[in-house]
Amino acid sequence: MEWKPDLSSETPLYSQIKDFIKNKISLGEWAVGTKIPSQRALAERFDVNRSTVVTALSDLIAEGLLEGNTRGGTRVINNSWNLLAASPPPDWSSYVQAGTYYPNQPAIQHINRAEFQDGIIRLGTGELSPELLPSEEMKKIFENSSLNPFSLGYEEPKGNQYLREQIAAYLQGIGVQTSPSNILIVSGSLQALQLISIGLLQRGSSILLEKPSYLYSVHVFQSSAIKLVGLPMDEEGIQTNQISRYKEGYNASLLYTIPTFHNPTSTLMSEPRRQELMRICADEGLPIIEDDAYRELWFETPPPPPLKSRDPNALVLYLGSLSKTLSPGLRIGWVVAPEPVIDRLADIKMQNDYGSSSVSQWAAAEWLGRGLYQEHLVYVREQLKRRRDLAVQLLKSNFTEIASWSVPAGGFYIWVRLIVDVPMQMLFERALKAGILLNPGSIYDRNAGSYLRISYAYAKLHELEWGIEYLAEMIKELVGVSKK
Amino acid sequence: MEWKPDLSSETPLYSQIKDFIKNKISLGEWAVGTKIPSQRALAERFDVNRSTVVTALSDLIAEGLLEGNTRGGTRVINNSWNLLAASPPPDWSSYVQAGTYYPNQPAIQHINRAEFQDGIIRLGTGELSPELLPSEEMKKIFENSSLNPFSLGYEEPKGNQYLREQIAAYLQGIGVQTSPSNILIVSGSLQALQLISIGLLQRGSSILLEKPSYLYSVHVFQSSAIKLVGLPMDEEGIQTNQISRYKEGYNASLLYTIPTFHNPTSTLMSEPRRQELMRICADEGLPIIEDDAYRELWFETPPPPPLKSRDPNALVLYLGSLSKTLSPGLRIGWVVAPEPVIDRLADIKMQNDYGSSSVSQWAAAEWLGRGLYQEHLVYVREQLKRRRDLAVQLLKSNFTEIASWSVPAGGFYIWVRLIVDVPMQMLFERALKAGILLNPGSIYDRNAGSYLRISYAYAKLHELEWGIEYLAEMIKELVGVSKK
Ligand SMILES: Cc1ncc(COP(=O)(O)O)c(C=O)c1O
Ligand SMILES: Cc1ncc(COP(=O)(O)O)c(C=O)c1O
Repeated sequence: MEWKPDLSSETPLYSQIKDFIKNKISLGEWAVGTKIPSQRALAERFDVNRSTVVTALSDLIAEGLLEGNTRGGTRVINNSWNLLAASPPPDWSSYVQAGTYYPNQPAIQHINRAEFQDGIIRLGTGELSPELLPSEEMKKIFENSSLNPFSLGYEEPKGNQYLREQIAAYLQGIGVQTSPSNILIVSGSLQALQLISIGLLQRGSSILLEKPSYLYSVHVFQSSAIKLVGLPMDEEGIQTNQISRYKEGYNASLLYTIPTFHNPTSTLMSEPRRQELMRICADEGLPIIEDDAYRELWFETPPPPPLKSRDPNALVLYLGSLSKTLSPGLRIGWVVAPEPVIDRLADIKMQNDYGSSSVSQWAAAEWLGRGLYQEHLVYVREQLKRRRDLAVQLLKSNFTEIASWSVPAGGFYIWVRLIVDVPMQMLFERALKAGILLNPGSIYDRNAGSYLRISYAYAKLHELEWGIEYLAEMIKELVGVSKK
Repeated sequence: MEWKPDLSSETPLYSQIKDFIKNKISLGEWAVGTKIPSQRALAERFDVNRSTVVTALSDLIAEGLLEGNTRGGTRVINNSWNLLAASPPPDWSSYVQAGTYYPNQPAIQHINRAEFQDGIIRLGTGELSPELLPSEEMKKIFENSSLNPFSLGYEEPKGNQYLREQIAAYLQGIGVQTSPSNILIVSGSLQALQLISIGLLQRGSSILLEKPSYLYSVHVFQSSAIKLVGLPMDEEGIQTNQISRYKEGYNASLLYTIPTFHNPTSTLMSEPRRQELMRICADEGLPIIEDDAYRELWFETPPPPPLKSRDPNALVLYLGSLSKTLSPGLRIGWVVAPEPVIDRLADIKMQNDYGSSSVSQWAAAEWLGRGLYQEHLVYVREQLKRRRDLAVQLLKSNFTEIASWSVPAGGFYIWVRLIVDVPMQMLFERALKAGILLNPGSIYDRNAGSYLRISYAYAKLHELEWGIEYLAEMIKELVGVSKK
């Protein structure tokens, strides 16, 4: 089947021949230096007039790919890709802009890139320090994999059955009664939010949430044309008195909350507030997403039971995750919800990525099933408490004149409000130049421009020390407060 | 802070008090058998008239939660959840229907569930048989993890750097020149399609593709309001003569193709067709998604080089995956594309799931980096070829009178066209009852109602044997062809 130009095509014959020759060159079939067939031979082979061949060849000579010599021979002299390109490449940037999903905030894009620069001190990162991640134990788990071998195949739509059983047992320990069929395994709780946004909500609807919130730092809901409506918080959690009014005013279909060691404020919702929230949402028929990623990270006393543990109305979609306690890299989280909701989300997950990594699911089940997770939690709480204490002490020594904050009772974060006037963008950039990466408050609430989310979870202890001290100095310099 | 009813709320006072008491009961603070405070005490405590308390209590008595006795005392007699529910649960089914994402086709939902029934013979499954998955080698890799330890943290937006280097090296071997910064790691190539659908395309746009196609079996694009426009195929692959017309007519912004061992037909696009496709798409400025998941699964001779290997115009978004060759459970695939596209998709992936499992990425890199993947491919090709031969022989012996098919040169599937008139839905159900799970052709093309996708990759050899024979009998019975 020799190629011939397509007479019925709208592309002119000489142009088709040009493309054909370029292709030969690009494939290396006509390498640089090759003497190509004569004009007459080409005309015969392509079944076209010689003039058509002449047009094609002289174009290619003009483009610098071929060279004609005086004796009528033609030779390939170049095969670089830019010359071979038949038409300009597609305008990819217009594709990039056409997509419906919102890009990350520029600040977050910046942070996402900077996090992987060598030697940077990450003072805002919402992740356990690598030294707190149980690499040795994880290795041992894999070494013992013959006891309970893992599957390399696709998993069930809701996730590995054994893992779901382990999670159900774990949940019982925190007061949530459920069964494996009410659980969906997800690749981190962020994915649960993504699935909810495309699986349960209409475009144009809205959800209520705390302001500030972690949720403002991603565009999961906005990208599905769902509006975020922020409610104010106090020291007991989200304020409930406006929920009814907002629900009606914005036709809200869900309330998203992080009641336990909230990101970014670390607020712990009090027991009375939890009851009140449940009562109001029950009255309003307003379902709740309870994002409980930080529950296990308490320092002095365990937090009140989850909203999901007192949910006779089946109002609550409950999200859990191993990311903040064991390993973010595993990408294992779970949703607990009424079965029609779980079925729906599982169905969409199958169309999005065919389920989470079977190796990750296996490892997660081993951690839970063998009691290792509970042991590890004890260790992590202890370590985090030490880090919290250090961070608070460092803030006291260095930030007293320039900022205010509350002492967290659990979680990763101190929500530091600068009480002096600092141009935050400038602070961010200067800090980065000095090797310190910050998470500005505005990521979590556009109006929180005077806040920083300081995380004591990630940096090494001496980095925390140096970083917080240096940061204070930088701020004082920026606002012209003289150092003592 | 004692709870009191909220005077400013629109919920009547007695109703707030009812909810409060139910809450107490549900929390177990007022357990079954508890004698609750007197009406007078409650009225005082809540700061309301005694009549309000009486209304609340008599409602709760009527609902069966409390019991009053003749001496005026009131006792908790029930704490079952359905009685405690203050309002009817939210109408979750309306949420399930509100979501924008399309549900899976009922046939696929059915298949997804049936696949995990014990003892079922899966004659259509697009997955390597568990006996072909290298569990032992995978175990060894994890046992040697100290050599090159894995990370338990979040990975870089584009995925683990070492893995991307290994993939770049692998791609060079199949003629694709690229660098790690042009590669995005995804949780299987399905996720790549999901990211493209929300990252690069406008709602209301459309994409061209082969008809039938794997892509019809998921709703990735349709759920983002993107239309699929099918083009006919012949034995050399997608027909190109209509591309220009369709592109204009439907304002198509991409062409999706599986040129190498197409799913479900196993068609291998010929070299001339590849050249022609590239030429036309270059002329039209129509970018291509090349889904190359089955490339390595050839039997007699390797397939022609990927479209991406002759892509001076940067037209091609190239998708690869380990799912069909090594392990679907790992959930590791990759996209190769111009950098602005990769950056965009990586940014969205960070907002969807913060990257793929680090353990999976690590394992994939080990397979590639240590040369084990290439060794394994040799084994898989050999095994699949044997299976293909067996399946073809079985079809010859049992299906000659009732069906026609082509012999695949690679991949997993035989696209069997029944030349007798069989009610496919009935066949599907009868087969399932007999323990055989089928993939009807209509999943991949609404008009392919007389086709079956037979996969020789999944079932055990004796299952293939029994399954194909039994299936033929069932069909003959259904159409009344007498057995010899
Ligand atoms: C409140 C909250 N929810 C969800 C997530 C996402 O975590 P993952 O997807 O790793 O479970 C985070 C991570 O920062 C978080 O802070
Ligand atoms: C053509 C094609 N592309 C993509 C996929 C998805 O595979 P994965 O997401 O496991 O890489 C499949 C699986 O059936 C397929 O056949």
